[in-house]
Amino acid sequence: MTDKKTGIAIFGFGTVGSGAARILLEQAEALKKRTGVEVALKKICDRDVTSDRGFVVPEGILTTDINEVFSASDIHVFVELIGGIEPAKTFILKAIEHGKHIVTANKALLALHGREIMDAAAKKGVSVGFEASVGGGVPVIKAVREGLRANEFQSVMGIMNGTANYILSRMSDEGLAFEEVLKEAQRLGFAEADPTYDVEGIDTAHKLAILARLAFEMQVELSDIHVEGISSIKPLDIEFARELGYEIKLLAIAQKAGGELELRVHPTMIPVGHLLAQVKGAYNAFYLTGDSVGKVMLYGLGAGQMPTGSAVVADICDIAMASDAGNAPSGMSGLLPLRKRPIETLSSRYYFRFSAKDQPGVLAGIAGVLGQHNISIESCVQKARGQKDDVPIVMLTHEAMERDVQNALAQLDQLDIVTARTTVIRIEEGKKI
Amino acid sequence: MTDKKTGIAIFGFGTVGSGAARILLEQAEALKKRTGVEVALKKICDRDVTSDRGFVVPEGILTTDINEVFSASDIHVFVELIGGIEPAKTFILKAIEHGKHIVTANKALLALHGREIMDAAAKKGVSVGFEASVGGGVPVIKAVREGLRANEFQSVMGIMNGTANYILSRMSDEGLAFEEVLKEAQRLGFAEADPTYDVEGIDTAHKLAILARLAFEMQVELSDIHVEGISSIKPLDIEFARELGYEIKLLAIAQKAGGELELRVHPTMIPVGHLLAQVKGAYNAFYLTGDSVGKVMLYGLGAGQMPTGSAVVADICDIAMASDAGNAPSGMSGLLPLRKRPIETLSSRYYFRFSAKDQPGVLAGIAGVLGQHNISIESCVQKARGQKDDVPIVMLTHEAMERDVQNALAQLDQLDIVTARTTVIRIEEGKKI
Repeated sequence: MTDKKTGIAIFGFGTVGSGAARILLEQAEALKKRTGVEVALKKICDRDVTSDRGFVVPEGILTTDINEVFSASDIHVFVELIGGIEPAKTFILKAIEHGKHIVTANKALLALHGREIMDAAAKKGVSVGFEASVGGGVPVIKAVREGLRANEFQSVMGIMNGTANYILSRMSDEGLAFEEVLKEAQRLGFAEADPTYDVEGIDTAHKLAILARLAFEMQVELSDIHVEGISSIKPLDIEFARELGYEIKLLAIAQKAGGELELRVHPTMIPVGHLLAQVKGAYNAFYLTGDSVGKVMLYGLGAGQMPTGSAVVADICDIAMASDAGNAPSGMSGLLPLRKRPIETLSSRYYFRFSAKDQPGVLAGIAGVLGQHNISIESCVQKARGQKDDVPIVMLTHEAMERDVQNALAQLDQLDIVTARTTVIRIEEGKKI
Repeated sequence: MTDKKTGIAIFGFGTVGSGAARILLEQAEALKKRTGVEVALKKICDRDVTSDRGFVVPEGILTTDINEVFSASDIHVFVELIGGIEPAKTFILKAIEHGKHIVTANKALLALHGREIMDAAAKKGVSVGFEASVGGGVPVIKAVREGLRANEFQSVMGIMNGTANYILSRMSDEGLAFEEVLKEAQRLGFAEADPTYDVEGIDTAHKLAILARLAFEMQVELSDIHVEGISSIKPLDIEFARELGYEIKLLAIAQKAGGELELRVHPTMIPVGHLLAQVKGAYNAFYLTGDSVGKVMLYGLGAGQMPTGSAVVADICDIAMASDAGNAPSGMSGLLPLRKRPIETLSSRYYFRFSAKDQPGVLAGIAGVLGQHNISIESCVQKARGQKDDVPIVMLTHEAMERDVQNALAQLDQLDIVTARTTVIRIEEGKKI
């Protein structure tokens, strides 16, 4: 942006769009002083241009006609904040075609179609800012891409979904059931009507895909990530975990292991003394290990109108300040092919909660199958009889192979003494974390 | 840097200089790929060019003659890593005069002479990178200056000195005395032979001055910061704190209060459940509150060869990548005059440990003086008789005014029942933290 005056169009005047627009309008003077350039909000495009968003939008900015945005020569940055795949993707590609720089908070789109978008942008020489797509207001993309760029990363871990962490925190602090907390979270607007993306780890996987590409410079697809959610976690699991000195968190893990990359999202037991175990409520935390810097953590709100708006505006300013915006590598194109470490080769300690019939020989039956599969039991607790005929049996294993665990569980699930799907929680501890 | 090839000279081949040089030499290809520009280490200037630093430096790079650096037209960035005020300051100003960009890890120099250096750089149109001056490898300067630039900050707090935090952590975990841990830290090389800067809070104040200028855009001088160290903290204090649910940390605090800025560094009691209380060992943590983003924390190693080298190299790349490096505001010049809130007007809860004679009426005497100064006691513990004639008396107050506290303590210290200087620890909790 050589003319030091950058025109902005926001596409999507919802929660995040309103936050970004409010900051651009209300902080215009402060931003100009801080950056040395002028950023002017020229257009906000949405189907709904009449509802009150709680602040005054100057006349002539609101429009329902997106083509007005593409053709305007005084608009340099196209800010996509509608979310979802379409029409977001089509409009972003069209904006790139018109030579606009892009800022987006759309993690699903980047996780699924990031390569296409980044390639189109690189070809056209425009920038794509996506700080807001991961970690809301936490500047983790900038940290990986710029502040820690002198590092080869060994691992990128984190609590990347505020809704899932809120649910687990409430379950942990108050002994409530998953369903109960979820319902309350939905009532309070912390969880979506359809919570699948949040509680089943999909949203977390979107963010891990984006971060892992940047940190490891490899082409990570969503399908490369092993994903398990938190909907099967019971207060009983949390209680057991705590007795054993752990908190349960939905953890995203990308980790180098012998030249290959492990990619997984699942409920994880973390020692209570670890910083990640102390991340409560709707907060996110990103725990990175680099060869020079060692361990670094970034913590903050991973969603919400103003935090995400803060990240969007930071990206807009970066583009406005760079006279050669678009020429710097995005960190998201020219990636190497992924050398993926299959989940089956994972070596970990495991927590199992079996639902079993309350009859003699059950424990021996389960333990026997585990033994056949080289899974060594470290400790075992059989809790008092439940209300129904089945009882929970909890086991902690020594280090075991995921392949063996999957085979053993498949075999156990077919026994008629096992009455429900076994809950599996992996344990992260020691040097790796 | 329009030629996409940036020449670097490192001045000071000590711990950090070796770390930065090693990264530049060993990661040259990776950095080129990540940034799209070529960064070439041309010179390393030091009095000692013969000692083995553990890696190979190509011929022609080592020199003892700094004038060679100033006059070389293929050197664009001057990296100052000798520390201390002189000759660092003179050489930085000379390098600026020669049109070189500057990267420095020198917090003392920036805290004391930052304005002069930034003004000289702005006049000459060159950049000054100083990520490494605060938080070692933790990219906190970049976060405040770029990632969170859409925010008005309400507070900037943190554990900013690894040595002090290491000492407090060891005292806390193992019940050891300050002197004992300090000696061990010195033997292991974690603490300097003269530990004054680290344990008396001066180094922390240097970093707070730099961060507060950036975050609050005001001219903060070292003398504006109220500084107390940790050398008077006893295992007894840590034990009491823990019983009451707190950890003791050397905290730096810059906080807006009614348009004024509070600036202080002192031992602080933080609720054990707070993330900052969980920061152990030599780690640093920066806890920022912005109007849009809310609370954000950055955590990592605040010192050391490779972490600090990582920050130095990140800064070098930022300068190399910006074709208009030097034209963007540094965030450190054009600051507004400080509107300082004097420490006397602080309102806080306090922990006092009195050393008093073991005789009747002592407690009443102390409590009486506190009462005269409007200081209301929340709880009081008188521990069993010490080995000497004096006993420790610990009190926790309700919210009180610093001015009243200082007046009361001055009066108490003159009583002959009080046998040593009273230890004061302020308590941070509630919404502010």
